Amino acid sequence: MLKRYFPIVEWLPSYDRHTLSQDLFAAVIVTLMVIPQALAYALLAGLPAVTGLYASMLPLVAYTVFGTSRTLAVGPMAIVALMTAAALSGIVATGTVAYSEAAATLAFLSGVMLMLMGVFRLGFFANFLSHPVVSGLLSASGVLIATSQLGNLLGISMSGFTLIEQLAGLATHWQDFNGLTALIGLGSLAFLMGMRRAGPTLRRLGMTATLSGFITKAGPIIAVMISTLLVWAFDLEAHSVAVVGEIPRHLPPLALPSLDPSLIGTLLMPAFLISLVGFIESVSLAQMLAAKRRQRISPDQELFALGGSNLAAALSSSMPVTGSLSRTVINFDAGARTPAAGSFAALGVALVTLYLTPLIHFLPIATLAASIIVSTFTLLDARGLKRTWRYSKRDFAAMLATIVLTFVSGVEVGVMAGVGLSLALFLYRTSRPHSALVGRVPGTEHFRNVERHTTEHDPTVALLRVDESLYFANARYLEDTVYAMVAERPALKHVVLISSAVNLIDASALESLEAINARLDDSQVKLHLAEVKGPVMDQLKQSDFLDHLTGEVFLSTYHAWEALHDEKTAVKPTRDTSSS
Amino acid sequence: MLKRYFPIVEWLPSYDRHTLSQDLFAAVIVTLMVIPQALAYALLAGLPAVTGLYASMLPLVAYTVFGTSRTLAVGPMAIVALMTAAALSGIVATGTVAYSEAAATLAFLSGVMLMLMGVFRLGFFANFLSHPVVSGLLSASGVLIATSQLGNLLGISMSGFTLIEQLAGLATHWQDFNGLTALIGLGSLAFLMGMRRAGPTLRRLGMTATLSGFITKAGPIIAVMISTLLVWAFDLEAHSVAVVGEIPRHLPPLALPSLDPSLIGTLLMPAFLISLVGFIESVSLAQMLAAKRRQRISPDQELFALGGSNLAAALSSSMPVTGSLSRTVINFDAGARTPAAGSFAALGVALVTLYLTPLIHFLPIATLAASIIVSTFTLLDARGLKRTWRYSKRDFAAMLATIVLTFVSGVEVGVMAGVGLSLALFLYRTSRPHSALVGRVPGTEHFRNVERHTTEHDPTVALLRVDESLYFANARYLEDTVYAMVAERPALKHVVLISSAVNLIDASALESLEAINARLDDSQVKLHLAEVKGPVMDQLKQSDFLDHLTGEVFLSTYHAWEALHDEKTAVKPTRDTSSS
Repeated sequence: MLKRYFPIVEWLPSYDRHTLSQDLFAAVIVTLMVIPQALAYALLAGLPAVTGLYASMLPLVAYTVFGTSRTLAVGPMAIVALMTAAALSGIVATGTVAYSEAAATLAFLSGVMLMLMGVFRLGFFANFLSHPVVSGLLSASGVLIATSQLGNLLGISMSGFTLIEQLAGLATHWQDFNGLTALIGLGSLAFLMGMRRAGPTLRRLGMTATLSGFITKAGPIIAVMISTLLVWAFDLEAHSVAVVGEIPRHLPPLALPSLDPSLIGTLLMPAFLISLVGFIESVSLAQMLAAKRRQRISPDQELFALGGSNLAAALSSSMPVTGSLSRTVINFDAGARTPAAGSFAALGVALVTLYLTPLIHFLPIATLAASIIVSTFTLLDARGLKRTWRYSKRDFAAMLATIVLTFVSGVEVGVMAGVGLSLALFLYRTSRPHSALVGRVPGTEHFRNVERHTTEHDPTVALLRVDESLYFANARYLEDTVYAMVAERPALKHVVLISSAVNLIDASALESLEAINARLDDSQVKLHLAEVKGPVMDQLKQSDFLDHLTGEVFLSTYHAWEALHDEKTAVKPTRDTSSS
Repeated sequence: MLKRYFPIVEWLPSYDRHTLSQDLFAAVIVTLMVIPQALAYALLAGLPAVTGLYASMLPLVAYTVFGTSRTLAVGPMAIVALMTAAALSGIVATGTVAYSEAAATLAFLSGVMLMLMGVFRLGFFANFLSHPVVSGLLSASGVLIATSQLGNLLGISMSGFTLIEQLAGLATHWQDFNGLTALIGLGSLAFLMGMRRAGPTLRRLGMTATLSGFITKAGPIIAVMISTLLVWAFDLEAHSVAVVGEIPRHLPPLALPSLDPSLIGTLLMPAFLISLVGFIESVSLAQMLAAKRRQRISPDQELFALGGSNLAAALSSSMPVTGSLSRTVINFDAGARTPAAGSFAALGVALVTLYLTPLIHFLPIATLAASIIVSTFTLLDARGLKRTWRYSKRDFAAMLATIVLTFVSGVEVGVMAGVGLSLALFLYRTSRPHSALVGRVPGTEHFRNVERHTTEHDPTVALLRVDESLYFANARYLEDTVYAMVAERPALKHVVLISSAVNLIDASALESLEAINARLDDSQVKLHLAEVKGPVMDQLKQSDFLDHLTGEVFLSTYHAWEALHDEKTAVKPTRDTSSS
């Protein structure tokens, strides 16, 4: 119990000086690297920049205690920040204290939901989104996030959570365009994009892969330093270049978030969707990294840990957090060994907040916007789009619909549509299961599809193999299939349902089987079962179906054939071709 | 094309005098029997009583043209009426013209949705609700409908769409209690309940089963006549006994319903849920009756026909309609042969509206309430509850949750929760598929679960059979299963995935297979496939998975075993027990 909910007790006792030094080194790197990102994502969520720093302290400590991944780093994340802004925009005015309070409430709700889902082991909820839908959602969100920053990049004030709103905002406020801001923004963008590709060049200049890797990842902090210096040196703030400005030099105020019932009512659905998206992102990431180091994570405990992190965020006047890709990759590459690295990074961010925020005053918003835009590149998955198109047109359709809906109606609708489409697609597939009439391969105990193989069959016996579990979505289809088959074969006396691929018969399918049994009985046709799996048989025995069954339950199709077929009417195979 | 959308062209050419006389007879019976019900359901929906008559004219004609069931009778239906009231109650004030107009708009939206679903062949949507959930929904709705009528029965003015609201309404308005109304109401109730059970007594008195059947079903019309006479004779209207009152003596005004965008926006979701519930009720009913007469119906065309009926309802200032159980049973028992009977009944209702409504003036509402309460008895399914409990605790949990939610939050929430629970349950089941390591049954080409059978196996070869299609909900579980297995078996060199029960590999599962392939490769373990079904193989060839696959694709498990196992390491069976 203790180990389940507090994985820290597993690794802390064996924590030694060597691990400490590795974790400390990683924490220093992470602290430096993620400050710009933390500020940027707070702005993306419509919150004061300092909220991003707050979100990078206590939540990290909570994850140290509850998390099962050794290297996952939690904190603000782009898509979650965008969803936070979308959830709050209609309810409270941006920039007000009420807005910040509502963000904390959102983190609180998300935290409670995630923790409860963890306690009830609902980690499988993440499976409700198929990979193509998640990939489409991430790509479309990336584009939305990038376009949302075009205004900050060019000095144009705009907002909007759909592509149309954003483009309309850009078009109508075009006159706000500020040349100096654009120069800094586009300059930062060009620099950051260059840095991303600088790795090979740096290595050619003789650097080790590790060092060149760090320098390329340090792009944002370098851009921040240079642009801050420029703004300070040339007093560009006076020329309408927006800057981060004054940041309060204290630790996050600890307080219970607002629990106003009407606010909670409005935020329940957004909180659920944010939790879902955050969890899926986070757990995929944690699983990928655990696989690299041959470690294992527990999805249910990850839910609990993310819930704890969000509660910590809520109690420290912050915003919803989740496992962040860029943060985690830096942490992993810097050699973090345990979740303690996260707590050390939290300490680092606290020190920065207390002593170094005056340096951030002149940091231009346009540079942060550029760093957000560059970070969205990792979300775009054009290759996935192409692969899915080749592999399955239906999966591709779900993916495309998710992308289009996210563009047109925002991330929330995109997530809901994605879940709906994933499920609808699967249900549609399983609601018309494949089934085949089989016949005996002459001289053997094997039975194969009569359409594909040369088989022996008997017009009085139909051997029907159903290739799917029987459940509510296909129960009616099964009835239709059997009735149609019986209607076509007037000589029929026996129908054998071969259940080798039936892993489940739910209550709906049981009712259909009873209906089939009764209807066939009216036509003097007996219903038999064959190859019923053990667990399915155990469950059938809980009902009185087997008492009413007009026929028998056979162990194998061969037993059924031997017992039912009539030597006089059986037809020897006449087809002389045999395909697969 | 013509035959698909206008099934009338199939039966009309062979329509003869004999069929005509049967249909006419059924129409007369239906007209007489359903008048009280039509009035009652309109009141249940919060509409003027005459709306129920309007809903029993043009919609029936539309069904004659478009319907595929020979005996289904459309019209107002209890649950749909309750849902109509719930949908409109928050938006417009009951009793106003705007309320009636909104009801027509609801019918219009429902009609458009149903028609579109029919055109796009989305009849399988009905499969999204499992039988236990539908049964729970009907039972709970029945109780809600019955309690909603307690006020009318006792002369207490109350309203509410959840059990709590209703009981609170009864409690707070208890002082309205009207003794005379209660006498009529409870008297009618006792009479109707007695009539339902009078069948055996009447037959013992020498009546034929048909005649006694009709007399028992005529209960409501007899109760209506007697109570109307009493109210008229003793002028009970002056003693605060509520009556139907003046009914306009004209045919329904034909008009386009209000298409106010904000009204439509609010009604979209209720319209969808009403369509879903109405369709499920109607199509189950039609299928049951078609089965009795060895006819077939087309669910997709039924959607189209119900859509047409609702459009007809909308254009004639009426309310949402669907296939009605009680109406249909009367029609079927009265011997209707074709949908023409519906049109004749529509004519009958029109004649009643024009010439006989003055007779209805003194009909007490309490009697109508009693007839509604009695009609809900057919919705209660206590036996289903017990059966489901015995057969499957999970299905029972979904059923119970649907019932509780319907009581607490109303029918709309009940439907949505029902759909959600049905799906969640199924996904949960398939997200953890059964899988088994199999070994060779000595001396044969058969492979069975090593846990259950005496088999020959090889520590370097794992033969893993997965008993489920591989799709997004279980893709991650498959990865976990394989990794856990490999971690336990250090000697492993080959993993063979036996795919005989895999009917589908979707894009998510493909990614998981690729991840498994790569990860096993890291550990010098080869991944092979065996018994891949034809269509699955065809789809795999659309991706480059097979190019990267470290192992081979074998036709059968036996082929894989022969190629991979090592005579030196293979272990002959040592267990001497053999179970099923």
